[in-house]
Amino acid sequence: MKKHSTSLRVRLPVLVLVLEVFLIALYAAYVTYDDNANAKLQNNETNPMDNTLYQNYPFFADIQVMIFIGFGCLLAFFRLYGFSGIVFNFLTATFAIQWAILVQGYFQFSHDGKIHLGVINLINAEFACAVVLISFGAVLGKTSPVQLLVMATLEVPVFAVTEWAVLKYLRINDAGGSILIHLFACYFGLGVTFILYRPSLNDGHAKENTRYQSDILSVLGTLFLWVFWPSFNSALTLKGDDQHRAVLHTFIGLSSSTLTAFALSAMLNKNGKITMADIQNVTLAGGVTVGASVDMMITPAVAYALGVIGCTACMLGYKYLSPFLARRLWIQDQCGIHNLHGLTGLISCFAGICAILTASEEVYGPSMYEVFSHRAPMEGDPRLLELQQLIPGLLPGLGRSAKEQALYQLAAVFSTIVVAALGGLLTGCVLKLPYLASPPDELCFDDELFFNVPPDYECPIGLNDQIRSEDCASNVTQQSQAPNVTSTV
Amino acid sequence: MKKHSTSLRVRLPVLVLVLEVFLIALYAAYVTYDDNANAKLQNNETNPMDNTLYQNYPFFADIQVMIFIGFGCLLAFFRLYGFSGIVFNFLTATFAIQWAILVQGYFQFSHDGKIHLGVINLINAEFACAVVLISFGAVLGKTSPVQLLVMATLEVPVFAVTEWAVLKYLRINDAGGSILIHLFACYFGLGVTFILYRPSLNDGHAKENTRYQSDILSVLGTLFLWVFWPSFNSALTLKGDDQHRAVLHTFIGLSSSTLTAFALSAMLNKNGKITMADIQNVTLAGGVTVGASVDMMITPAVAYALGVIGCTACMLGYKYLSPFLARRLWIQDQCGIHNLHGLTGLISCFAGICAILTASEEVYGPSMYEVFSHRAPMEGDPRLLELQQLIPGLLPGLGRSAKEQALYQLAAVFSTIVVAALGGLLTGCVLKLPYLASPPDELCFDDELFFNVPPDYECPIGLNDQIRSEDCASNVTQQSQAPNVTSTV
Amino acid sequence: MKKHSTSLRVRLPVLVLVLEVFLIALYAAYVTYDDNANAKLQNNETNPMDNTLYQNYPFFADIQVMIFIGFGCLLAFFRLYGFSGIVFNFLTATFAIQWAILVQGYFQFSHDGKIHLGVINLINAEFACAVVLISFGAVLGKTSPVQLLVMATLEVPVFAVTEWAVLKYLRINDAGGSILIHLFACYFGLGVTFILYRPSLNDGHAKENTRYQSDILSVLGTLFLWVFWPSFNSALTLKGDDQHRAVLHTFIGLSSSTLTAFALSAMLNKNGKITMADIQNVTLAGGVTVGASVDMMITPAVAYALGVIGCTACMLGYKYLSPFLARRLWIQDQCGIHNLHGLTGLISCFAGICAILTASEEVYGPSMYEVFSHRAPMEGDPRLLELQQLIPGLLPGLGRSAKEQALYQLAAVFSTIVVAALGGLLTGCVLKLPYLASPPDELCFDDELFFNVPPDYECPIGLNDQIRSEDCASNVTQQSQAPNVTSTV
Repeated sequence: MKKHSTSLRVRLPVLVLVLEVFLIALYAAYVTYDDNANAKLQNNETNPMDNTLYQNYPFFADIQVMIFIGFGCLLAFFRLYGFSGIVFNFLTATFAIQWAILVQGYFQFSHDGKIHLGVINLINAEFACAVVLISFGAVLGKTSPVQLLVMATLEVPVFAVTEWAVLKYLRINDAGGSILIHLFACYFGLGVTFILYRPSLNDGHAKENTRYQSDILSVLGTLFLWVFWPSFNSALTLKGDDQHRAVLHTFIGLSSSTLTAFALSAMLNKNGKITMADIQNVTLAGGVTVGASVDMMITPAVAYALGVIGCTACMLGYKYLSPFLARRLWIQDQCGIHNLHGLTGLISCFAGICAILTASEEVYGPSMYEVFSHRAPMEGDPRLLELQQLIPGLLPGLGRSAKEQALYQLAAVFSTIVVAALGGLLTGCVLKLPYLASPPDELCFDDELFFNVPPDYECPIGLNDQIRSEDCASNVTQQSQAPNVTSTV
Repeated sequence: MKKHSTSLRVRLPVLVLVLEVFLIALYAAYVTYDDNANAKLQNNETNPMDNTLYQNYPFFADIQVMIFIGFGCLLAFFRLYGFSGIVFNFLTATFAIQWAILVQGYFQFSHDGKIHLGVINLINAEFACAVVLISFGAVLGKTSPVQLLVMATLEVPVFAVTEWAVLKYLRINDAGGSILIHLFACYFGLGVTFILYRPSLNDGHAKENTRYQSDILSVLGTLFLWVFWPSFNSALTLKGDDQHRAVLHTFIGLSSSTLTAFALSAMLNKNGKITMADIQNVTLAGGVTVGASVDMMITPAVAYALGVIGCTACMLGYKYLSPFLARRLWIQDQCGIHNLHGLTGLISCFAGICAILTASEEVYGPSMYEVFSHRAPMEGDPRLLELQQLIPGLLPGLGRSAKEQALYQLAAVFSTIVVAALGGLLTGCVLKLPYLASPPDELCFDDELFFNVPPDYECPIGLNDQIRSEDCASNVTQQSQAPNVTSTV
Repeated sequence: MKKHSTSLRVRLPVLVLVLEVFLIALYAAYVTYDDNANAKLQNNETNPMDNTLYQNYPFFADIQVMIFIGFGCLLAFFRLYGFSGIVFNFLTATFAIQWAILVQGYFQFSHDGKIHLGVINLINAEFACAVVLISFGAVLGKTSPVQLLVMATLEVPVFAVTEWAVLKYLRINDAGGSILIHLFACYFGLGVTFILYRPSLNDGHAKENTRYQSDILSVLGTLFLWVFWPSFNSALTLKGDDQHRAVLHTFIGLSSSTLTAFALSAMLNKNGKITMADIQNVTLAGGVTVGASVDMMITPAVAYALGVIGCTACMLGYKYLSPFLARRLWIQDQCGIHNLHGLTGLISCFAGICAILTASEEVYGPSMYEVFSHRAPMEGDPRLLELQQLIPGLLPGLGRSAKEQALYQLAAVFSTIVVAALGGLLTGCVLKLPYLASPPDELCFDDELFFNVPPDYECPIGLNDQIRSEDCASNVTQQSQAPNVTSTV
């Protein structure tokens, strides 16, 4: 009976078919090419090499590697959940991008009643996709692919609306997406996992552990994220020196957080050994921590310090906060996204506010009004014309003071967290509906539930008897398996 | 005795030595630098940043990743054939590119009696190399490295001549290479495998199955191909909006075929589970299906639909056509290239023809005569001068009508298939010659035949008795092993 | 007792903390943005797309992949040392880059008392990092992470001073870094490993061997290095045709050395089989061998021949020289860096000298004085003005003849080798200091010493009894294990 309840044979095709018909109808009705991809708009003044493709495609390709290979490998760390980690990531990411193209297109890239599609839309859609994948980290191993598609279906529009509202009405500085991407994704994911709380998992799960090869695969995913993170943080900054700084700060922040992660991992381990899970996750904290101020003149030393601070917070979160959240607040955060994206995101926002408050024309020159575009004088202000002579193409802003801008940043942080958490809670309720093939407790973290697996998948053998014989039984669905065995790692 | 007949100790070095002497002599005699790589041609009007290197190298690097890492990992899916999959791919690709530089150079890049070498030649050679690697997929596990080098030696010139003749005389639109690359590679490979037919393999082979890690490695290869496929399909389009559309369509097509592949995989499996082989292969169908029309104004919705259609055909091919081909037509297509490259290639050609027939100046503007360059007016036609004022640099074409162009496309499809199949059949006959170290049936799909393997390679243990003890025997060459055991997966 | 002596619990955090405080103080005091990353220097004449970021970032990203993923995977080839290989590489590389930014910055990128930081500094720092990682290859498996950080701390300044002195005073041509990177790294590493000589390892070590998955991971690392090596060799050449040639030559050299490596591997194996270690290492020899002449007009055929020659020398080195060095000269070169970087580096230097001696204006045109910048006429020479009309922006040189330049190249080779070897010997002595957690002989090549490992790590099972039961014992630190068992592979 149980087996039937998680079969994907009807559920998945029906859901996909409905989604595809819906998407294809909307694409046909509303999606057209943007000016750089439209043959009709090319004329004798167009220089093909000036096409925006060449500015955006390299960053797009780097982020693709992060989304599909980096995230995919990173999520494949469980001993018996490698197929699911890498492949459900593939499925979810693919759909999230398709869907985000439409929703973000409606809010951000539409005019004349059409969504205008170029590579720049794809980059934006990949950011929405990253949001979904981060939230996925909170419920990894506990959700079916059907639930993941439903989650993406709901999370993408909530995110797109939040993004649009914050950018249009609050107008914040957040080049690396620490507020909009990381905080949103984190609190949405925590909301979902709170609703999907499974008491039995708090006592450990026989399959909630790694194998030698899965740890290596996962760290490989970390390295792909690490290497291309500068492209992620700088993809949507202003071109030129802004993007240059974003690359430098991201690299330095990641670099210092990596060094710190090794030190803290050995220090917090009672045998003085290094823990692979720390290397897989905590090394990346610096990339998030520099996010909100990544394009500002914060100096390399501050980027270095942010990496150290973010890494420390993240590591302490894994060590002390995650167990507390799971036991006391019923928030089972499977990959610790609250540490890697929440705590670091909050630090990043705080650092961004400090950078805004201390920014001055002395440091930035007149291009301060490009970096902090909302602080530029308003239309009609004579100061604007003056600045436009120094920086041609400077757009009129809102004439905000530094303090005003800082308050708007704060408002964005709070409203993003609130909307994300509420959205996550509601989405969690939807995911509890029947017929979504939610895995039973004893088959969490187990590929066999949703995949044809080769015969060697089940039992990585340690000759010592650390793995209990239950884990190795060929029929893992048997009722005799105790669901609450203590984790072996 | 058998062991001696497959030793590479003399055969491989002798063949390589002969090939290298031959290649080095031809390189010395005929290969020089193209104008962008020639120091002598730089002068006070040369702007170094306008060098074609910067337009071509990013695409070249992406395709390199696809060829060496994407293909390599994808082909490493067999349980005991991981070394061979990834390493024979490396060997074959390396040689195929070296050889293609010369053969394509002779036909396409030579003037003044010299082949002029730049990164653009390397991209073209990588396409020829992709052709060889796709064909390799049909005979994976059944061929020695010596046979693979011989196959590459023969396939590259047949391909280069076909490519040159089709481009020069039929003048077709085929930006993504669906006709020239995918159809050619597919039917060549089927020709080879038809001649190399091994009746015993139709009853299954004890080693023709995967292990947990090999499935993960293979899907990683798929992801690398998936991520960089837009670069593959757009590398040789016109710069500017054409290349921009090629990127968009490829991404959308791949994306929709991926979503569809998950749904169909679960639907066609009797337990409603997902099959990894489908994820590894069928998700990529969309990249081929959009190929022939990838740079045209087909609209994003049509690209989406093409991905769905191509994926469906490919999946049904794996399920129903491949077994039929193997049993009835003696075509043992090891990786199912007929599904992933043949069926999808045919659909792509058909879609390309439709796109050609429906193209109009209303949609494309005057740049229609750039996209469909053979439809541009001929030299001397007053309409040409008129168009050249709108699109400077427009080259005179052949003044073809849409229907004429469509017929030429059809002619290209048929002639490519015929030449490829004939070439494959002849090559298969050559590969049956003695002294090419062809593996005996029972050592197909087995690294130990050609590699020093570490002691743990042999037996991924499933504690259930699904793997028969024969597979685990340390001396796999022993005569006692039944060659016709039923596949265990 | 032994266990305590290698705990990282105090040592690693203390060392990292000291280094970080030191680094952060220096960054704060001395590091500022370079002109392309400084907001203040942007004005109404700045075109954002002319920012040097766009020239350097693609090469930077490619080299990042090589350093963190290519090297990391390549070094993970030992059966029980995969975590250490990939993760210590990550740690060492991260720190080496941070540190090199400062040291190289002081020597090469400082003015007005400040180090000016842009992506170009990061590329240079990655080259210094590559030096450390190559040297790491000589002592892989025998050193603790504390020792590796100390080694990086010492090697980076010795390298940076050598680099600066050679470039400033000897002024050599070495675009691919064959002299400065490969020879330095090799002889420094040999110096270190000479001091760290462990007699017991010469008799083989039970853990000094591979497993099936580690061999595949390692060859994947090779492929990443292979694919992006053209970016490495061309990152610091002149833009334009020079960089174009560097890409072509590197590709051709790697390609021919790969083909040769397969042939030699089968030929030198008594069973005529291919050895994975050869594919993992020797295929890359061509990339080093073309290094010193990579941007010159050496012709594609010569690049091809250099790949063949370098590969042959490298292969013979692995077969005959490495065992000799280990047994007679007490130089245990764990990864054979002397073959892959030393022998090939020497050949490369020799080829570079030949290319310099045969260079003529007939072949290069006036841009010969750009490629060989030190041969350009000196300031004030009327010939300089003449040349500057042909090549605007040509800088005055030293008016060296070809022979003079060749002698300077030779001087650079010898002085680099001497400084590197001395530096390595001294560094080796420092690494022998107590408290650096040097692993005991029997726990070399073993992740368990420094990592929490999952239960399946210990014993990849071959059902044949090739692996002795000692290797599988769960408590690998037990005294009963004989340290001098013969290697099983």
